[in-house]
Formats: sequence, C-alpha cells, structure tokens
Amino acid sequence: MLKTIGFIFILFLTACATNQTATDPLPSWTDGVSKQRIINFVNDVTNSNGGDFVPSSKRIATFDNDGTLWSEKPTYFQLLFILDRIKQMAPDHPEWKTTQPFQAVLENDMALIKAAGEHGFMQLAMATHAGMTTEEFETIVNDWLATARHPSTGQAYNSMVYQPMLELLDYLRANGFKVFIVSGGGLEFMRPWTEAVYGIPPDQVVGSSIETRYEMRNSKPVLARLPELHFSNDNVTKPVAINRFIGQRPILAFGNSDGDFEMLKWTTSGAGPRLGLLVHHTDAEREWAYDRESSEGRLVRGLDEADENGWLVVDMARDWQVIYPYQSAE
Amino acid sequence: MLKTIGFIFILFLTACATNQTATDPLPSWTDGVSKQRIINFVNDVTNSNGGDFVPSSKRIATFDNDGTLWSEKPTYFQLLFILDRIKQMAPDHPEWKTTQPFQAVLENDMALIKAAGEHGFMQLAMATHAGMTTEEFETIVNDWLATARHPSTGQAYNSMVYQPMLELLDYLRANGFKVFIVSGGGLEFMRPWTEAVYGIPPDQVVGSSIETRYEMRNSKPVLARLPELHFSNDNVTKPVAINRFIGQRPILAFGNSDGDFEMLKWTTSGAGPRLGLLVHHTDAEREWAYDRESSEGRLVRGLDEADENGWLVVDMARDWQVIYPYQSAE
Repeated sequence: MLKTIGFIFILFLTACATNQTATDPLPSWTDGVSKQRIINFVNDVTNSNGGDFVPSSKRIATFDNDGTLWSEKPTYFQLLFILDRIKQMAPDHPEWKTTQPFQAVLENDMALIKAAGEHGFMQLAMATHAGMTTEEFETIVNDWLATARHPSTGQAYNSMVYQPMLELLDYLRANGFKVFIVSGGGLEFMRPWTEAVYGIPPDQVVGSSIETRYEMRNSKPVLARLPELHFSNDNVTKPVAINRFIGQRPILAFGNSDGDFEMLKWTTSGAGPRLGLLVHHTDAEREWAYDRESSEGRLVRGLDEADENGWLVVDMARDWQVIYPYQSAE
Repeated sequence: MLKTIGFIFILFLTACATNQTATDPLPSWTDGVSKQRIINFVNDVTNSNGGDFVPSSKRIATFDNDGTLWSEKPTYFQLLFILDRIKQMAPDHPEWKTTQPFQAVLENDMALIKAAGEHGFMQLAMATHAGMTTEEFETIVNDWLATARHPSTGQAYNSMVYQPMLELLDYLRANGFKVFIVSGGGLEFMRPWTEAVYGIPPDQVVGSSIETRYEMRNSKPVLARLPELHFSNDNVTKPVAINRFIGQRPILAFGNSDGDFEMLKWTTSGAGPRLGLLVHHTDAEREWAYDRESSEGRLVRGLDEADENGWLVVDMARDWQVIYPYQSAE
C-alpha cells in the first residue's frame, strides 16, 4: 500500500516536471505542422551547437501589421480613422458638404469613397494627417483609439490584435530576436500604441510616412506635418525600407498579402536558415475569410508561389485556437 | 592590540567597499565640471525615487558621428573613401583623366575638388556609391576600412574613434539608454562597422542615404544602389530623421558642429531632464583644433548659443585624458 502511494507520488512528480519543461510557448496555436515548423526554426537558429545557429544580433524578424498583427476588415483601420476624423473635422470645413471625396465620407457612401481611388484617398489622408505638429497628431491618434469602436465587434481597434501573434512576438523576443513592424500603415499612426500592445518600441516600427518640417513656433522647435507623401511602404518598397531602417536582412518575415510578397522573398533569399510566413484569412466565423478577391489583404501570388518559395501558409481557422486576446479572457 | 588590528581590518574593508561603488565609469574623462555634469544627469534620470526619473524606454541618446565619435580631419573620412575609390576605379574610366571633378581627384588637387562644390561632390559621391548592390557596397566599405590608412596617423580610419566617447556609450547603455548615431554620413558607409566599433547595431544608425531599388537578378532579389540622393541628414533635417527613424525625442544629444544645432535644440526643448552636449575641438597637439572657420565641423552658433540653451561644451584638450583607444593601449 505504502509502495503504491509512493509510486503514485513519483508519477505525480514526473508529470509536474514534464509539464514544466514542456511549457507551451504558443498556447493559442493548434498543435500541428505550422506550430511545429515555427518552433523547429527557433530551436535551430538558437542552438549554438547546430549547423543553423544564427547569433542573436542577426535574429531579425519583420511583421506586417494590417491583417497580420491586427484585423483589416471591413477595411483598413487607418482608413476608418480617416473617415472618423473627416466627420469630426467637418464643422470647420462647411465646403466638404459639397466637395468630393469629402461629401461621400459625410454621407457614408463607401462605394463612392472607394471609387475616388488613390487620388481621392490621398486627399482624405492629407486632410486628416497633415496640418498639425507630430505631437498633436499623436494626441489625435491616442484619443481616437481610446474612444472609437469597431463597427462589428464593438471593441477598441487595438484590442483586435491576434493573440497567437502576441505569443509569437514574445516567443521570438525570449529567444533573442529583435522584432520589427514593416507595414504599409502610417509610421505615426502605429507608434503611439505598438509598444503597449505588441511590446514593439517606436524605433522598431517601419511604415509609410508623410513629409515633416522643422520649424520654430513661440521660440520652440516643432515638426510640422506636411500634406506630402514621403514614402509608401508596400510590395517592392518593403525591402527598400527594411534596408534603410533596419540595415540587415531579416531571417523571419510574416505577412498576409501580396504587399508582403517582396518582403518574404527578400527575407528567404538570404543565406542560412530563413522562414517566410503568411497568415491566410480562412475563418469567416471568428474573423473574416478572404484572399484573392479582397480589396484589403489581397493574396494571390503569395498563395500560388508559397510552396515553391518554401513559405509556411498559416491557416487561421485551423492553426489558431483563439483570435483576439479579449476572447481568451472570456 | 587585537582591537587595533580589528579596526584596521574594518578600515580596509570599508576602503574596498568604497572603491567598489566608486568605480569610475568614464576613466578617460578628466575629473571636472563636464564629467560631473554627465554623471549627475545619468544619476538623475535613473534614480526612480527622484523627480527627474525617466523610464528606460524613453532614455534615448543620439550621437553625431563625424567629429563627435571619430575624427574628421584633414577632411571627412567618407570623402577620403570617395577619393580613394575614384583612384581605384580610374582604370575602368579613362575619360576621368580629362573630366572634372574626376581629373582633380586623380591629380590630388584638393583645392579644385573643394571648388567643385556641392554639384562636384555629388558627382564623385554617386560615381563611388551607386551602381552596385547593397551587399557589394558593404564589401567595398569593409575592404577599404581593412586597408586604407589615415594620412597623418597611419591608423585605420575606424581606429580613430574617441576613447572617452566609447566609454560614454558603454556608460549610457549600462544605465538603460538606447544609443543611436544620427549623422550626415552615409547610412551604408557607417553600418558595416558601427556595431563592432561602437556597439551600435545597424538599425540604430541614422544617416544620409541614396535611393535603392528592388530588382530580380538571376532569380534572386537584390537592392540596387541608384545615383540619386534620397535624404541628406544635416541641421534642420536631423530632427526630421530622428522622428522618422527613432520616433521619440531623445533626452540626450551629442554633436560637435552647427549641423547638430537643431538636433540639440530639438532634444533639449522637450519636457523633463535633457542634456545637450558639443565636443569642442581644442587640441591641436593630440587631435585637431578648429571651430568657427573650419570647412569640416564648423561651429559658430553652437558656441555662441550653448550657454543660453544650457548645453555643455566639452573641451577636448581639458576634458579628455586620452583621445584614441590605440593611445591608451600604448
């Protein structure tokens, strides 16, 4: 009897020990091929006795933002910010009631807004992103995030980040990676909140930007935001921005659209171990399902050429057990 | 007797303890006002019980490079690189023998090179900095650093960095600062060696840059360096670049010329504790002495307005006991 109790006690201790050493670094990822491939890659590049070891200073990982770290439906959240701002600013711009594309925004005519195309978008973007100092713009973004709510979930926009990706960011950092955002989104639209939400500091955020100018106002310097595009960070310019801002080729890149194709190609064409990953939005119930026909996060080449490039396509419905952090807390 | 020995022993222990806590973090800096002000600043911002505490994530420090971290005489080292490269490349460009400003370089006519002005400089810069991939350029810079020697010291150029500044960079990092270079020098001219020499990784180097373009060559992506200026990082554009690359206002900035004036102004105009510093080149014997009349590192406004801005002017002759690391090893 005592022997049996002793045996059970040893079994219990063994179970505890096993549980401790096997703590899952990616608990929201389904056990399977995708999760295992990520873990194998991290094990390989951090194993100083293995042939695929990469020193910590070269463990650079880049992540797209829209559709990769947070959602992008019904449309890019920065576009929703623009639409909200146009409405907030409208009382000071009575002419917008009869001027396109502003009128379309005030009348919630999404078809007409999209029909305004790149030129119309830039008019809306500049009206809402320029004409203030950098510090004033930061306050505007923070105020919007604190009050605006997503039309279908009712959540704050920066709550709609992906729990499995938060775990992956932490897992990579715990393994000596330096993690960057490389997004088509605006630099100064992302930086006010990326550190609190993703643990990614402002200087590790690469994005699109408008021109700014150093000016003295009341004997104090400011940076005035000008209505002029400086850099659009998308597809072929993502490797350009990676080179300019980061100065090293990543060994891991994670995107979700054809706007990330060249970032993944640039990353995985380097020598040594490399990992390119794409989130495939396959979950119409818990998030959204879209790829080839979507105006946000269009993914055609990425799906067609993932295999030949050795990229891992993460199937959201299959590979992610939780989508948003607020769901795991429920 | 035993009591006396005990007392002496306690004195000895006390002396050891005092010595240990007072290890000098800046041994190449002369004990005096400049060194004390730097140490006081670091103590203030790291003292979590004090009114001037700054959390580590906001301890951003920016350093100019030419004349601040390494020497810039007889002229900017990157210009000496350009001149060396023109001579190396000349056999493939017979037309340079009779074409200015190339002819002036081949004939070592420094007066004529300088007289060629900004336009002439850009011709030389583009001929030597563009027309290859980013990886090819990195090899060119590394080869040059490995073989080229400074005309008066006979040292490798990246040996001519300032020992007191290396100590300051280490001291700041040990106190939770994130340290960046913000230089007029070329991004990709600095990045190949800043990590080894200064401990500053490529993504913490901000500088001037030329355009690059993503291209496929032999089924592999490259970044081609184009003969077109992307960004010149000097005076009023330094705060612009700090905002774009770093995304936070520094709390400490260190420069040596009027090209750093706006960086210091931007840094020290923020709320809370701030420190602006200028190296004043006052040591004609151990380094060079120059300020108001120099074509490199011209310093006029900085000297005239340092006091009213509360900036610390570091007097190289007085404040630095050693200039270069190879001198302290001698």
